[in-house]
Amino acid sequence: MADRTVLLTGFEPYGGRDLNPAHEAMKALDGRVIEGFTVAGRGLPVSLKEVRARLPALIEDVKPSAVISLGLGPGEAVIRLERVGVNLVDYEIRDNDGAFVSDDRVNSNAQEARFATLPLRAIETALLEQGIPVRLSSAAGTFLCNACMFTVLDVLAARSAHVPAGFIHVPYIPEQVAGMIKVTRAGAGLDIHQRADVASMELSRIVRAVETAIAVTALQIGGRT
Amino acid sequence: MADRTVLLTGFEPYGGRDLNPAHEAMKALDGRVIEGFTVAGRGLPVSLKEVRARLPALIEDVKPSAVISLGLGPGEAVIRLERVGVNLVDYEIRDNDGAFVSDDRVNSNAQEARFATLPLRAIETALLEQGIPVRLSSAAGTFLCNACMFTVLDVLAARSAHVPAGFIHVPYIPEQVAGMIKVTRAGAGLDIHQRADVASMELSRIVRAVETAIAVTALQIGGRT
Amino acid sequence: MADRTVLLTGFEPYGGRDLNPAHEAMKALDGRVIEGFTVAGRGLPVSLKEVRARLPALIEDVKPSAVISLGLGPGEAVIRLERVGVNLVDYEIRDNDGAFVSDDRVNSNAQEARFATLPLRAIETALLEQGIPVRLSSAAGTFLCNACMFTVLDVLAARSAHVPAGFIHVPYIPEQVAGMIKVTRAGAGLDIHQRADVASMELSRIVRAVETAIAVTALQIGGRT
Amino acid sequence: MADRTVLLTGFEPYGGRDLNPAHEAMKALDGRVIEGFTVAGRGLPVSLKEVRARLPALIEDVKPSAVISLGLGPGEAVIRLERVGVNLVDYEIRDNDGAFVSDDRVNSNAQEARFATLPLRAIETALLEQGIPVRLSSAAGTFLCNACMFTVLDVLAARSAHVPAGFIHVPYIPEQVAGMIKVTRAGAGLDIHQRADVASMELSRIVRAVETAIAVTALQIGGRT
Repeated sequence: MADRTVLLTGFEPYGGRDLNPAHEAMKALDGRVIEGFTVAGRGLPVSLKEVRARLPALIEDVKPSAVISLGLGPGEAVIRLERVGVNLVDYEIRDNDGAFVSDDRVNSNAQEARFATLPLRAIETALLEQGIPVRLSSAAGTFLCNACMFTVLDVLAARSAHVPAGFIHVPYIPEQVAGMIKVTRAGAGLDIHQRADVASMELSRIVRAVETAIAVTALQIGGRT
Repeated sequence: MADRTVLLTGFEPYGGRDLNPAHEAMKALDGRVIEGFTVAGRGLPVSLKEVRARLPALIEDVKPSAVISLGLGPGEAVIRLERVGVNLVDYEIRDNDGAFVSDDRVNSNAQEARFATLPLRAIETALLEQGIPVRLSSAAGTFLCNACMFTVLDVLAARSAHVPAGFIHVPYIPEQVAGMIKVTRAGAGLDIHQRADVASMELSRIVRAVETAIAVTALQIGGRT
Repeated sequence: MADRTVLLTGFEPYGGRDLNPAHEAMKALDGRVIEGFTVAGRGLPVSLKEVRARLPALIEDVKPSAVISLGLGPGEAVIRLERVGVNLVDYEIRDNDGAFVSDDRVNSNAQEARFATLPLRAIETALLEQGIPVRLSSAAGTFLCNACMFTVLDVLAARSAHVPAGFIHVPYIPEQVAGMIKVTRAGAGLDIHQRADVASMELSRIVRAVETAIAVTALQIGGRT
Repeated sequence: MADRTVLLTGFEPYGGRDLNPAHEAMKALDGRVIEGFTVAGRGLPVSLKEVRARLPALIEDVKPSAVISLGLGPGEAVIRLERVGVNLVDYEIRDNDGAFVSDDRVNSNAQEARFATLPLRAIETALLEQGIPVRLSSAAGTFLCNACMFTVLDVLAARSAHVPAGFIHVPYIPEQVAGMIKVTRAGAGLDIHQRADVASMELSRIVRAVETAIAVTALQIGGRT
C-alpha cells in the first residue's frame, strides 16, 4: 500500500567523484522492509533543475508515509541530521548540469525555511545507542542537499500531508578517501589549503544508520496511526 | 625463534578514556602469524617513566625482527605513518602517572631525532591498494607516542640491530566517538573550541591496516635474510 | 531624529571570558555619525531571557533606521555576515544566567526563520575592497547570536517596518587569544580536542568592518528615502 | 661589525601568490638596529636548489651573530616558533623552480634533525606579554621552510659557531586573505575541501613579533658576550 512506503532519495556522484555514499546507501536499502514499511529508493541528479522538477513528481508518484533524503557531507566525520532547510541557493562548486547558481531561492514563492519533521532526537539517541557517531545540525548548506531538503518539506507542507521528512548528510567511505589520496600522490600534489586525508565512515555503518533512522521514523508513524 | 617475531606495542587508555584503539588493535593481532612472523603484542602504560624503562627491557626480552608501535591520534581521520621521532618531551595533557612534563628530552644522552626504519612508502602503497586511508607524517607530537617511537629507534640503533621499527597513529573507533558524544549530550555541553564529533575508523579496518604493515615489513625482512 | 539612527548591539563577555570583541566594537562606534546616521550602541547580556525582553523594548525606544547586531564567533577567521536567523535555541554551553536551553524556539509563535535584510553582498564587496576578509554564512548557530538576530528581524517584521537588519559575527582579537594561550601555558594544559591557538583579527580592523557595514547600509537607506 | 649583525631571511612569494608576509616582514626590519644589533634582511627564493646554495654563502658573507628565518604558514592563526628542522624534503606543491621533490634529504651527509638554538621559550613569553598569539611547534613541515631551517642550523653547527638560529612561521595578512576570497568569488568557486576564508594576522603585528624575537635573542647574546 502506498501509505506503507518510505521514500529514500540518494544523490548521485558529483564534483568529479565516481561514487556517492549517499547513493550507495540508498541502493543498499531499496526494497527492504523496515518495521512494516517498504523502502522506495530513488537516485537524484545533482542538478537544481532536476531537484525542483523531480521531487514533487516523486512524492506524487510514491505517496510515501515518510521521506528521508541522503547526501554527501564532504569531510564530515559523523552522521549529520539536518534540522533546517533554508530557501536559499548559493553554490561553491558547479552542479552536474555545469550550472553555478548564486543568491537564488529554492522556490521564490515559498517561505524562508522549513524544519525537518523527522523524530531527530529519537534517531540521534538510537544511533548513539548503536555506537554510531551522529550530530544534529542547523545548517544543510546552500547547495543541492539543502535544496532537496527544502523542496521535500515544502511540497509536503503544501499537500498538508502529515508525512515526516528530513535530510541526512553522510561521510565519505574509506575506500573513497583512499582513492582521493592515491590521486594526489600520483599527481603533482595538492592545491594550497586542500586536503585529501579527510574523515570517512564504513558504508555498512552508514547503511545501519539510515536503516535505524527509517526504523525510528516508521515506529513513530506506526504508533501514531 | 626470536628472530621470527614482530614486537607490536599498543598504548593503554589515557586522558580519561576507557579504551584505546591502539591497545585493541595490538590485542587483536597478538599471537597471529603473519608472513612467517609471530606477533608478540605488548600493552604500554601511558607514562614517560614506563616508556623509558620498559621498552629497552622488552626489546632485550623479545629480540624482535621488527618493532611496530601503535598509539591513538585523537581526531585523526586516517592511518598515520610516522617518519620521525624527536628527542623532545612536552606534554599538552597529563600522562597516566599524573605527570606533566615540559621541554624535556626523551633521552638526554641521545641525538636530536631518529627516522623510522619501516618500509613506509611500501606500507602506504599497500594500504591505499586495500582502500585504507593513510598518510605519512613528519611529526609524531611531543607526548608519549613520540617518546615511544624515539626510544625504540634509539635502543635499536645502540644495539646496531638491523631491526626495522616505527610508529603508527590510529584514529578513534566509531563506538568511542559515539560514547564521547553521549557524554557531552548528557552533561552541560562542551567547553569552547572543543568538539566531540571527531573522525573515526572501524576497528576491523585499523586491524587490517596494522596487519598489512606487519606483512609488508615481514616480506621485506624475509626477502633480505 | 529617530529615523536617522542605526542601532548597533554588541554582546557582553560570556563563557568565562573577560572581553567580547563584539562589545568593544560596539563601544568604539557608539555615538559616531556615519553617512548621516548616528550610531546608538547598546550592550546586550548573553541571556535568552534578556534577549527576548530587551530587544523589542530597545527597538521601540530607539526607533532605528537600521539594526546591526554583533557577536563573537569563537575561532572564526573572518568577518561573517549572517544570512539567516532560525527560530531555534539549542545551547552547547551555558549562558550568563547559568541556563542551558535545549531544543527550544526563540519565539514559539513565530515562523521558522527570517532572512537578514541588510545589503549583505554590497557590504561583502565593500569589505573585500578594503582588504577585510569576510564571508556570508547561512548559519548563525543556535545560541544567543542567532536568537538575537531572529528576534530583531521578527520584531521589525511585526512592526511592518522597512528597517534593514542583520547580524555580524566577529573573530577574537589577538590580545585575547594571547591571553587564552597564557592561561593554558600556566595551567595543566588543554583538554583533548581543545585548542587555544585560534584565529583572530585586530580590533581596529573589526571596527572598520562594522563601520563599513553601517556606511553601506546607511547609503542604501539614504538613497531610498 | 660582523658580530653585531642578525641575519633575517624571508621567503619570496610562491604557490601562485604575489605576496609573502615573511618577505614583507623581512623588508620592514632590514637595516633596523635592535638592541645593538643591525638587521641584515635577505630574500630567499622558494627553491631547494637556491636554499642549499645560498644559505651557506649568506652566512659566510654576513657572519651573523644570530639567524632568524621567516616563512609563511598558510592558514596558520598564530606566530609559530619552530623547535626542530628535519633532514627531509617531501613537497605537497611545486616550488618556484617547478620542481616536485619527494622523499629526499636536505643534506644527504647530515644527521636526522637539528633543534632550533634561539631562546624559544623567552621569545614565546615576550610575545604573549605583548598580546601576540604564538605557539611552539615541533614540525616545520617538509617543504622549503624546513629545508631552510635545517640548512642554517647544519651550516652553523659545521662551523662550530655559537650562533643562535631558528625559523618562525607567520600567518597570512588580512589583505591577502581578502584577495584570495575575491578571486574565489569572481571565479567558479572553490575545489572541494578548499577554503579561502583562512586565518590571518596584521603585518604590523607580525613585524612586532619578529622584532621582539630579534630583541630577545640579541639580549641573550649580549648578556652572554
